[in-house]
Amino acid sequence: MKIGIVDTTFARYDMAKAAIDELKRNMGGVGIVRYTVPGIKDLPVACKKLIEEKKCDLVMAFGMPGKAEKDKVCAHEASLGLIQAQLLTSIHIIEVFVHEDEAESEKKLAKLMDKRAREHALNALMLLYKPESLVKQAGTGQRQGGVDVGPIH
Amino acid sequence: MKIGIVDTTFARYDMAKAAIDELKRNMGGVGIVRYTVPGIKDLPVACKKLIEEKKCDLVMAFGMPGKAEKDKVCAHEASLGLIQAQLLTSIHIIEVFVHEDEAESEKKLAKLMDKRAREHALNALMLLYKPESLVKQAGTGQRQGGVDVGPIH
Amino acid sequence: MKIGIVDTTFARYDMAKAAIDELKRNMGGVGIVRYTVPGIKDLPVACKKLIEEKKCDLVMAFGMPGKAEKDKVCAHEASLGLIQAQLLTSIHIIEVFVHEDEAESEKKLAKLMDKRAREHALNALMLLYKPESLVKQAGTGQRQGGVDVGPIH
Amino acid sequence: MKIGIVDTTFARYDMAKAAIDELKRNMGGVGIVRYTVPGIKDLPVACKKLIEEKKCDLVMAFGMPGKAEKDKVCAHEASLGLIQAQLLTSIHIIEVFVHEDEAESEKKLAKLMDKRAREHALNALMLLYKPESLVKQAGTGQRQGGVDVGPIH
Amino acid sequence: MKIGIVDTTFARYDMAKAAIDELKRNMGGVGIVRYTVPGIKDLPVACKKLIEEKKCDLVMAFGMPGKAEKDKVCAHEASLGLIQAQLLTSIHIIEVFVHEDEAESEKKLAKLMDKRAREHALNALMLLYKPESLVKQAGTGQRQGGVDVGPIH
Repeated sequence: MKIGIVDTTFARYDMAKAAIDELKRNMGGVGIVRYTVPGIKDLPVACKKLIEEKKCDLVMAFGMPGKAEKDKVCAHEASLGLIQAQLLTSIHIIEVFVHEDEAESEKKLAKLMDKRAREHALNALMLLYKPESLVKQAGTGQRQGGVDVGPIH
Repeated sequence: MKIGIVDTTFARYDMAKAAIDELKRNMGGVGIVRYTVPGIKDLPVACKKLIEEKKCDLVMAFGMPGKAEKDKVCAHEASLGLIQAQLLTSIHIIEVFVHEDEAESEKKLAKLMDKRAREHALNALMLLYKPESLVKQAGTGQRQGGVDVGPIH
Repeated sequence: MKIGIVDTTFARYDMAKAAIDELKRNMGGVGIVRYTVPGIKDLPVACKKLIEEKKCDLVMAFGMPGKAEKDKVCAHEASLGLIQAQLLTSIHIIEVFVHEDEAESEKKLAKLMDKRAREHALNALMLLYKPESLVKQAGTGQRQGGVDVGPIH
Repeated sequence: MKIGIVDTTFARYDMAKAAIDELKRNMGGVGIVRYTVPGIKDLPVACKKLIEEKKCDLVMAFGMPGKAEKDKVCAHEASLGLIQAQLLTSIHIIEVFVHEDEAESEKKLAKLMDKRAREHALNALMLLYKPESLVKQAGTGQRQGGVDVGPIH
Repeated sequence: MKIGIVDTTFARYDMAKAAIDELKRNMGGVGIVRYTVPGIKDLPVACKKLIEEKKCDLVMAFGMPGKAEKDKVCAHEASLGLIQAQLLTSIHIIEVFVHEDEAESEKKLAKLMDKRAREHALNALMLLYKPESLVKQAGTGQRQGGVDVGPIH
């Protein structure tokens, strides 16, 4: 299995590094292809290229939208593009975005980015190797990077 | 006939389970394929994979968008992706989303999710097996999960 | 010629019936295929299926978005899907949506829905049988269901 | 070369007529195919049909969105569809939309619509016959229908 | 390698010229194809044409959205189209947009446009010739045209 890792020079934390560490720690033999683009709007085609040209079985796309309204729009456009890229290839692309306004301090933001990247790396491995373990978590309120909120009754 | 069931680990209630129960209760021999992904933006490609790889004749996609504005945007992106997935495959995907702010208490929310899942399961069966029974309900103000509002004159 | 008619169980008035009546009254031999789905987001693929599987030459898609903001978003998603369905098939799909807040009373709303359905049925016939009669109305401020506003000078 | 002209019965001024006049005045032998649809959301597939069925080398799409918020959404949906139609055919479609609230009086609005239609007709001819003359205007603040704002330094 | 350069007559600064200067200065033998269209909504198909008809290996798309809300919508539509064009061709299109309200004075705006164009020209060269040098900048808070904000810890 080969996992593509795409990130940006715009982001302020190396989430890809955290994810790669987590992937290797949990699945020794997994193949990893890394690719970096300038901004989040460059992610969709980059993911598609990894799928087509590098034959990746799944791609993780990391981005950090800024605080401004304009940045929110960029993130929305990138998200739509990532969904389209998946539909054109029938391959999962796990979007791992952390908005710059999700935490109050840079320190907390960095920690959140690291944690979300790692937890989505585990999701990627489950999708590829153990889809049944995700079914067990269905409807349980998982939150990558934060505290899981749990199910309601 | 085979029905795909896709849901998320993000949601806080197992709507898929309710839907599967309703499907089996009303159409004993129907085939069911279940698949769980992390979040609602992963639903579109998951549905397409069930259609292509598992030959599903219809898919139900369950999601529970959170209360935040950001969650509303995610739901919008997912919905657009689900429509695209349908247009690329010419297969119905019934979107069953319940927004976390649709009910005042967790108890009412759980009840709403259960009911909506079940009523859309019946819609799925009608689309596949008895499309003429939906024609009979045309323009009658059906509301899955809530009280039907009825026709106007 | 064959015209597809798709509507929803969510809507509160049977616009499809009004349109079919108008179509038959004005073009006796026209073929009509009717299909009903739960909600407006189900319309795009339903139209595409009528075009592909029933060989419709044009489709009319009827929907009644509710008053809530969430309903406006659904209508927007459905509209984008209907445009995509047209582009994928190169066949016209006439969108006939009436928003629940377009009239003050249920009675006026029902009347508006009936009238808009009928006037768009005539548009459908002109597109299929007499496109030149639409050219004669170009830039004249036609409003289906309401009072035409006329041209400006 | 053949230019498609698509407009609507919804619009309140015959921009297509102005554009055709301008096209003929500046390029005698150019072929012109005219097509009229009910509203702006019908434009995308109409343009695609002119490209595919009538072999147009470029299409001009004329529309006049109303003042209401709902009309702005329609215009947005139509614009996205026109871009998609272009990407599916690799043919330019010049969108010529005038919003009903762009001028204070009907008289000024009619004048603006006439002028914008004519100036975009010239753009269409340059794209088809003299692309190098557009390069000369690159970054010079052209405004079709209004006063050009010019370059900044 | 061949780089396409597409810009608009709507923009008020010749960003394409700055980018071409930067490209030639840093990569002598690179091929350049220039194309100018009226507005930003014409960019997506123009980029696709350069990729298909001129065999460009990467395209840079320059635009300057105005200050009005309507202009923001146009930019959003153009951005979505540029992402779609990339997904349909599997070729990078670097979007270089400068919003007219990004700087307080025309002088500062011109300077920003020049700088952003040049810095994205370097990004284009890295994507084509040295992708590994972008990986080195991953997560470091690069900002084209402005001051880089740097990484967080």
